[in-house]
Amino acid sequence: MENKRIVISGVYPEIDCGLFPVKRVPGEKVKVQADIFADGHDEIMAALLYRNHAENSWRAVPMRYIANDRWAAEFTVEHAGIFIYTLEGWVDHFSTWRKDLRKKWETAQAGQTDIQIGAAIVKAAAGRAGDDNKNLSLLAGKLEELSKGDIAAAVGLALSPELFELMKLYPDRSIFTRYEKELKVAVDIPLANFSAWYEIFPRSCGGGAHGTFAGCEAIIPEIARMGFDIVYLPPVHPIGIKARKGKNNSPQAAPGDPGSPWAIGSPEGGHKTVNPALGGMEAFGQFVKKARQAGLEVAMDLAFQCSPDHPYVKEHPEWFKWRPDGTVQFAENPPKKYEDIIPFDFETPSWKELWAELKGIVLFWMEKGIRVFRVDNPHTKPFAFWQWLISETMKISPDVIFLSEAFTRPKPMHALAKLGFTQSYTYFTWRNSKTELTDYFTELTATEASEYFRPNLWANTPDILPEYLQFGGRAAFVIRLVLAATLSSNYGIYGPAFELLENSALPGREEYLDSEKYEIKKWDRGRPDSLAGLIAHINRIRRENPALQKTNNLRFYGCDNDSVIFYGKLAGDNAILVAASLDPFRVQSAALRVPVYELGIERGRQYLVHDLLGGDKLIWTGEFNTVELDPRTMPARIFRVHARMRREADFDYFM
Amino acid sequence: MENKRIVISGVYPEIDCGLFPVKRVPGEKVKVQADIFADGHDEIMAALLYRNHAENSWRAVPMRYIANDRWAAEFTVEHAGIFIYTLEGWVDHFSTWRKDLRKKWETAQAGQTDIQIGAAIVKAAAGRAGDDNKNLSLLAGKLEELSKGDIAAAVGLALSPELFELMKLYPDRSIFTRYEKELKVAVDIPLANFSAWYEIFPRSCGGGAHGTFAGCEAIIPEIARMGFDIVYLPPVHPIGIKARKGKNNSPQAAPGDPGSPWAIGSPEGGHKTVNPALGGMEAFGQFVKKARQAGLEVAMDLAFQCSPDHPYVKEHPEWFKWRPDGTVQFAENPPKKYEDIIPFDFETPSWKELWAELKGIVLFWMEKGIRVFRVDNPHTKPFAFWQWLISETMKISPDVIFLSEAFTRPKPMHALAKLGFTQSYTYFTWRNSKTELTDYFTELTATEASEYFRPNLWANTPDILPEYLQFGGRAAFVIRLVLAATLSSNYGIYGPAFELLENSALPGREEYLDSEKYEIKKWDRGRPDSLAGLIAHINRIRRENPALQKTNNLRFYGCDNDSVIFYGKLAGDNAILVAASLDPFRVQSAALRVPVYELGIERGRQYLVHDLLGGDKLIWTGEFNTVELDPRTMPARIFRVHARMRREADFDYFM
Repeated sequence: MENKRIVISGVYPEIDCGLFPVKRVPGEKVKVQADIFADGHDEIMAALLYRNHAENSWRAVPMRYIANDRWAAEFTVEHAGIFIYTLEGWVDHFSTWRKDLRKKWETAQAGQTDIQIGAAIVKAAAGRAGDDNKNLSLLAGKLEELSKGDIAAAVGLALSPELFELMKLYPDRSIFTRYEKELKVAVDIPLANFSAWYEIFPRSCGGGAHGTFAGCEAIIPEIARMGFDIVYLPPVHPIGIKARKGKNNSPQAAPGDPGSPWAIGSPEGGHKTVNPALGGMEAFGQFVKKARQAGLEVAMDLAFQCSPDHPYVKEHPEWFKWRPDGTVQFAENPPKKYEDIIPFDFETPSWKELWAELKGIVLFWMEKGIRVFRVDNPHTKPFAFWQWLISETMKISPDVIFLSEAFTRPKPMHALAKLGFTQSYTYFTWRNSKTELTDYFTELTATEASEYFRPNLWANTPDILPEYLQFGGRAAFVIRLVLAATLSSNYGIYGPAFELLENSALPGREEYLDSEKYEIKKWDRGRPDSLAGLIAHINRIRRENPALQKTNNLRFYGCDNDSVIFYGKLAGDNAILVAASLDPFRVQSAALRVPVYELGIERGRQYLVHDLLGGDKLIWTGEFNTVELDPRTMPARIFRVHARMRREADFDYFM
Repeated sequence: MENKRIVISGVYPEIDCGLFPVKRVPGEKVKVQADIFADGHDEIMAALLYRNHAENSWRAVPMRYIANDRWAAEFTVEHAGIFIYTLEGWVDHFSTWRKDLRKKWETAQAGQTDIQIGAAIVKAAAGRAGDDNKNLSLLAGKLEELSKGDIAAAVGLALSPELFELMKLYPDRSIFTRYEKELKVAVDIPLANFSAWYEIFPRSCGGGAHGTFAGCEAIIPEIARMGFDIVYLPPVHPIGIKARKGKNNSPQAAPGDPGSPWAIGSPEGGHKTVNPALGGMEAFGQFVKKARQAGLEVAMDLAFQCSPDHPYVKEHPEWFKWRPDGTVQFAENPPKKYEDIIPFDFETPSWKELWAELKGIVLFWMEKGIRVFRVDNPHTKPFAFWQWLISETMKISPDVIFLSEAFTRPKPMHALAKLGFTQSYTYFTWRNSKTELTDYFTELTATEASEYFRPNLWANTPDILPEYLQFGGRAAFVIRLVLAATLSSNYGIYGPAFELLENSALPGREEYLDSEKYEIKKWDRGRPDSLAGLIAHINRIRRENPALQKTNNLRFYGCDNDSVIFYGKLAGDNAILVAASLDPFRVQSAALRVPVYELGIERGRQYLVHDLLGGDKLIWTGEFNTVELDPRTMPARIFRVHARMRREADFDYFM
């Protein structure tokens, strides 16, 4: 039994009834909307309340009325960590009185009593006002006095802006409702929102011999020159010997075969050890230091699984499943067997110790300076475990990034993003047509998913050589690179396979022939056909254009050719339009429908567009303008539009 | 820190995170869906749990997998009251083992150990099985034994249906998740779902003089003959004298003017008194009794407001707002004044006493045999009050119906329905075109609103004489009657104004000229042009066709004329199609697109349709069939289709 008059419902954003936070980076806004209304005809007011979770008191932002009982307000999160928001509404008797008095005055019904009612409201406000007490008391007295004779003057005072502004400072919130939930914002570091990843196998930087981190230092300048932010390393730990895989995933390793880095652990150590063949912990530390000096974060792979030789198997047999024949259960998904890999048994009665140990691994590497983790197959470990691990980690240090490598069904992928993963792998690799790309990225950027799911687009991975790249030639690589780098502000490639246009696949499969997962490769980084220069150019365009540093500002625009995709991003007065051919074989031309309204371009006026990729400068007029995209030269354009911009707020509220 | 492997989310239905119940009547199903999944590749199972809120233990219904990690199950609510449901999911190691073993067997990988693993699972199940313990122990032993020699036989036993069925009875639910919320179903009496309402002013059944309930008894057979279920009476209490309204809402009553029944209370009594002019309490009781004998419920008006003469004003001045001049605040919405009506001040510090008194009014009339309440302007009293009042009442007796007369903005109307109102007035009165009707009823019947909002369609009310009826002549009345009675299973008319085609309005307004709200009317019920016969016919069609006794089974179908609307309802093997002209002036013909697939009509086969309204029988073939609708004869058809029906479940799951 609570006598509340205000209803607050339909709050957006609110993920799964507030169970999960929305995601932001510092400087970003959280735009909140809600249905807020009272019974009857009284005027109401509403405020958005927010605070950093460590603060004790709320900061309040007045909400503004939109339409259909919907209210909106926004706040900006300043730094990484957890922010909290909620809403309040209250009945505003002063505004109700003011509105009614105006109508009565206009219909010659206003009388002494009407003024006196308002005087009492103002007097009550004076009681709440500290420094303004005198002013309000004075005004209340004046209303009272004028009510006895000069109704016109009294109404003038009653409706005056200064009384209104003063009263706004001391609202009567006695009839008020606080929304029943406090909602969360997980604020990550800026890198969470804008990052270019480069994956390499350190063992391949030995020029054919087993590479070491010392040798890998030589590539750091090249990776930095290409403009990447993060260099991601597959597991760097000792690799198991028992059941080690040979070339092309052969069940028998030949002597000298290095095995899969994901078969972690040997008598030399486990998840907290660096493979001695890579130079051990010291060389690794040196590599991380050098990388950071070059502006690169090093991302490690969290693959929570063991080789049969991992020390855990002997030290903690209770963390594994044992078969009736006394052997430990290896990974299998019948009929497939992964005999070099042993999963943890998350159903073990010792799960608390297991969880603690795995958390210890994360903290261990954080102490070594690692802040970015790419998590291998998180969908094969309990969701509850990840939620706990990530929130525990973030409590210690909110500047950590966890990338979810879950190539699985949509619901588990979204569940992982909701529960805390900073970024997520996507289906991008298998979305090639205009409809597929438009549908998928509309789903990710223009629905509730945009609040918690940060797509990280990989053009290739050691596991995936998409058909499109196998058969599309150089143009296919360029197209997929441009799409990855501009559709999302987070993207990655597995190199040098990517920039060296590696397209040899296992027959009929989307997997690399002679995959680097099972052997040491020798790459010729200096090859003249390398895409390294183009990659550097595209990453420079991303750095110079704030519009490309966000993902949810993506909008698709019309164009009359199904083999050409046309989309854009706006940020402040930075406007980028991308036209990309999806056909790696033939020249395609298209009439693009430029969003002149959003861009604030007046009807009939000419405007300059600058193709940042090709260097051309063009003068366009009106909505429809034509491009020709040639796979032999450059199958895509990244235009920067030079035009007066509308303010973002003009058109993004009702999205 | 909870080691759960199953995620349950996206539960439907779940109104506002479970804050509000969904609505049903006895015998109806609650179809529940949810996303349920685990990490990894393990098989899972899920159950829908439900119980009457008074029961201590859950009943479980196994859920079935649909697609995309979505599961579904349903249960039927048996009787009025509150039901509760929730969900459970668990990892099913037996099914996982069975699935994996099958694949291994098919690829010649199955060995002794694989069988032994299953034997252990079966043995563990034996531990949980009471009577079946012996069977399961035996089977486990047999598996174990066969594993040593005859793998083929062991696999045969492992995959056998009898083992599967037996194991299903004793699931291992050690790795299980219960959904974190318990959701509610408010089960109302059948009348809540299927009712025809007839509103009359009892004071007008005196043949021109002030009518009494004794006189009104004579009309009961007529109302029953028309097929109505509920006779709804505007307030029957003493009417205030001070500021009493005269004819046509004149601020000055002439001597003998009876005043508005909504100006409740005089020295003769208030909300618990029957106006002596109507014959007082005894005559009222007699009327209710006679009505019930004729199969009619009497609905009373809950208008929680007072005339200035109401005894409450003196006895409980603290329940009202007082102005600085010592007068009590009457109702106003400037510039409009309602000086004959005084609202309660729900902000009074004595609100608990006020709420208790208002609840007392409801209980008072329930004791007099009243079970149906039409609530006047509920949106002008706090939502929290109604939620409390309705839930308190339903606790005492779940067979009460509250109809919300809230003609206001969409959000407050929906809020009232969510918080507990059994039925709701709608915007039907102002939805006349095909697009308006289709959009509005799709919103009400094919979205989440269908779970909590029961539309009650009024063709007219004492407050509203729609323009369409003012100018459309007899055909307009017929069209609106057919639409009201078939679009929703709950509808009403204000009579005899409706059946006597009363269409005189205040100039430029949608209000009755010489409104019965302010004067006693003399109606000639025997007029030959009365629609009473047609109303009786339509109500009979409703009673004879279960499809018309539901609302959410409404589906709109195509037809090639924008002046003709075509829709249908299915229930079991009862199939009704309605084609109604929306043009009261001209003949309209249309090709109707009959939903032959839903109706289970085979391609090319003829089928019989029976026009229940006009009596015609027609033979149709295929999808497209033509009707002609003539406003001078009958501008609508209600077809019953005679064809083999598909089971409802075949096509309503994905709606």
